[in-house]
Amino acid sequence: MVSSASDAPARTPAPPYWAVVFTSVRNGADESGYARAAARMVELAQLQRGYLGHESARDASGLGTTISYWDSQESIARWRADLEHTDVQRLGRERWYSSYCLRVCRVERAWSFEARPGEC
Amino acid sequence: MVSSASDAPARTPAPPYWAVVFTSVRNGADESGYARAAARMVELAQLQRGYLGHESARDASGLGTTISYWDSQESIARWRADLEHTDVQRLGRERWYSSYCLRVCRVERAWSFEARPGEC
Repeated sequence: MVSSASDAPARTPAPPYWAVVFTSVRNGADESGYARAAARMVELAQLQRGYLGHESARDASGLGTTISYWDSQESIARWRADLEHTDVQRLGRERWYSSYCLRVCRVERAWSFEARPGEC
Repeated sequence: MVSSASDAPARTPAPPYWAVVFTSVRNGADESGYARAAARMVELAQLQRGYLGHESARDASGLGTTISYWDSQESIARWRADLEHTDVQRLGRERWYSSYCLRVCRVERAWSFEARPGEC
């Protein structure tokens, strides 16, 4: 099973491209069902046309952020409308989340840093 | 001291507005110095003109995301150039991060969900 966690910043192409910022608060219920669905959604997103990468973190406080990157708004709309995904969206509202916010953003500029071996 | 953590999605105005998505991997060093600086940066950002809110989560894996929201690119540029902030940016590269990625995004659409009491 693919993990829903990510352990490095996503490697994305030069801007512009698109980001979906999903910020959520878990209600603590059904941890195993939630974890299974989250992993499956990552697996499924990666198969979508236009998927560029994702980053995901959940704090000890319960707040989580998942940012997925896409080549176009059309790809985001297709992913949003995917049947298995809409099913899980409904379960999210019914079972797993106290609250969430979704933001669709156009990435205009990006830069990165990597510590060189032996730098510190 | 203000905590650098956030425990709910930020309450932001109707789009368009701007987001800075900061995704980082900690190297594990200097936890107390890092926590102090992170809390201070939240405190300082909240005082900046044009600050709209932020969301922050760090995973057990070490990957963290901090998303700050702003009214304009000019506000982001001012915050980036703040002297105390540029000092902490340098410390971040020298002491605390293995890698990071910064993305400046224009938020085009947003929607949210809150579970109603008694719904589930």
